[in-house]
Amino acid sequence: MSTINHQFRLAARPVGMPKPSDWNYTEEPVRELANGEVLIKVLYLSLDPAMRGWMNEGRSYIAPVGIGEVMRAGGAGRVVESKNPGFAVGDLVTGIFGIQEYATSNGQGLNKVNTKFAPLPVYLSTLGMPGMTAYFGLLDTGELKPGETVVVSGAAGAVGAVVGQIAKIKGCPVVGIAGGPDKCKYLVEELGFDAAIDYKSADVRKALQQHCPNGIDVYFDNVGGDILDAVLTQIKRGTRIVICGAISQYNNTTPVKGPSNYLSLLVNRASMKGMVVFDFAARYGEAAKEMAGWMAAGKLKSREDIVTGLQTFPDTLLKLFRGENFGKLVLKVADE
Amino acid sequence: MSTINHQFRLAARPVGMPKPSDWNYTEEPVRELANGEVLIKVLYLSLDPAMRGWMNEGRSYIAPVGIGEVMRAGGAGRVVESKNPGFAVGDLVTGIFGIQEYATSNGQGLNKVNTKFAPLPVYLSTLGMPGMTAYFGLLDTGELKPGETVVVSGAAGAVGAVVGQIAKIKGCPVVGIAGGPDKCKYLVEELGFDAAIDYKSADVRKALQQHCPNGIDVYFDNVGGDILDAVLTQIKRGTRIVICGAISQYNNTTPVKGPSNYLSLLVNRASMKGMVVFDFAARYGEAAKEMAGWMAAGKLKSREDIVTGLQTFPDTLLKLFRGENFGKLVLKVADE
Repeated sequence: MSTINHQFRLAARPVGMPKPSDWNYTEEPVRELANGEVLIKVLYLSLDPAMRGWMNEGRSYIAPVGIGEVMRAGGAGRVVESKNPGFAVGDLVTGIFGIQEYATSNGQGLNKVNTKFAPLPVYLSTLGMPGMTAYFGLLDTGELKPGETVVVSGAAGAVGAVVGQIAKIKGCPVVGIAGGPDKCKYLVEELGFDAAIDYKSADVRKALQQHCPNGIDVYFDNVGGDILDAVLTQIKRGTRIVICGAISQYNNTTPVKGPSNYLSLLVNRASMKGMVVFDFAARYGEAAKEMAGWMAAGKLKSREDIVTGLQTFPDTLLKLFRGENFGKLVLKVADE
Repeated sequence: MSTINHQFRLAARPVGMPKPSDWNYTEEPVRELANGEVLIKVLYLSLDPAMRGWMNEGRSYIAPVGIGEVMRAGGAGRVVESKNPGFAVGDLVTGIFGIQEYATSNGQGLNKVNTKFAPLPVYLSTLGMPGMTAYFGLLDTGELKPGETVVVSGAAGAVGAVVGQIAKIKGCPVVGIAGGPDKCKYLVEELGFDAAIDYKSADVRKALQQHCPNGIDVYFDNVGGDILDAVLTQIKRGTRIVICGAISQYNNTTPVKGPSNYLSLLVNRASMKGMVVFDFAARYGEAAKEMAGWMAAGKLKSREDIVTGLQTFPDTLLKLFRGENFGKLVLKVADE
């Protein structure tokens, strides 16, 4: 009797927030493996803001998910069958698995992970793509230098929390921007940020003036919109702005709000530069090793917000866009 | 009998386009020179888009012109009296003189020029600030490399025309964006641009697709607004956008239109960087020498749009914002 695989497939290109009708919940038997392939039982799936972009038509840094295709998502799972000499049954792996219970792979892009160093969900979080994004975005794209002041938005999110902690490890003052007192308290008390600004209650512009007496050297932007515009009023000569994402704009039904204050780049000879983590794939190993060392030393903490149940996917995904997740949003699909 | 100096002083901070009532036309006797000072009879004044920004209140790369102060402007003139051993009566000089007939200076920021190499107005144009802006913006901020494709907006303006010609000298394909068939014809037929796009009649986005088959490596932006947004849809991986100005936005009475398509920076790992020519002051000599060589060799042409009469200033300035000037806008104050 063949194993049944349940899946979420893209039924329609969402307009604004994805609706339940934008998905098809489907099932199909797991197919026979070809030579060189492995079958993975998916345990955890990574839910990321970038997924919203993958649902749209059009040119981007990666092809859009086609209508009728299984929704693309990173995941962690266990090899349950292998016709690939590189992987044995029982191996724990991460890769791009899709929103489903079972994934097949030819081994490309599949990484073995060891839960001796960190729990499995952490490999979708601080030791996974969000952690890599933070590491390379801050240190490479942002060219962070010792003692510089860092501001990060979406600071309690999977990427932002790591950006801030790496900056602290590098001896830099860090101010996080996040939504709500709980997240702000967490940033300062748990993660050691120098200050946190609750954008839901504070005047971000004034709060930046207060918390960044020496100005902002690097701004790591995950949100875009009004917060990016507020930061632009407070940059100084040579500030580097890393454009990592713009979660405030992803579900717009009107055009994206461009940064009205972008001429502050001219006045301040400042720059704004985009980054996509995939460009650094050849160096993931180097970064993961350094970050695992920081975790072992207690300098880098990882927090996951784990929701159980594949079926909850359409609604769980929306937690990201409502700012409801607290830490890296992970969908638990099966028990380890 | 003392010499009378006529001047235009800022009477009010303009809202939108500067109005006649934003200026006071004043006169006062030229004062006695102190030791170390020189008196300059102003011959030509440089009218530049940046002047609109200097009229606004608030933090910028240079202090705003105060209400009641003589409007700031670069100029070229002749020394008519000198108590400074560095300058003799009869010397031709450039500097920041203000919209007036006579300027006094302690010699700082005053440059002697030789009309053997180029007519005096050219020292306010291709061999002056606009030329320096083009040179350093393209080669330093834009980091132009041989063979790369350059797109420049405001291409028939003082800065844009030099940007395109330097790019051609460096062996790069160049596409200019300008308003109207005459300017476009001039760019291609006189200045050797590979193509010119008339933004008033063409679909800029489609025209860029057509004229930049290998994509855009450097975009030099003088205009902002819809043209910047159109270019952002056509950038490729690693495109550098130099933010030099945004003339389309300077007289807005509504907030500046931020570039809605700025997330194209993310998708394309592209950058947007501001530049201010004053940062390169220490290297003006080096650039002027190289550019004078190009002019002598017939590779670099300079075109000035000279309007006569100090009194015409309030209206002549507006030619810039109406796109009416064809070449560097210069106000002739007195005969050489």
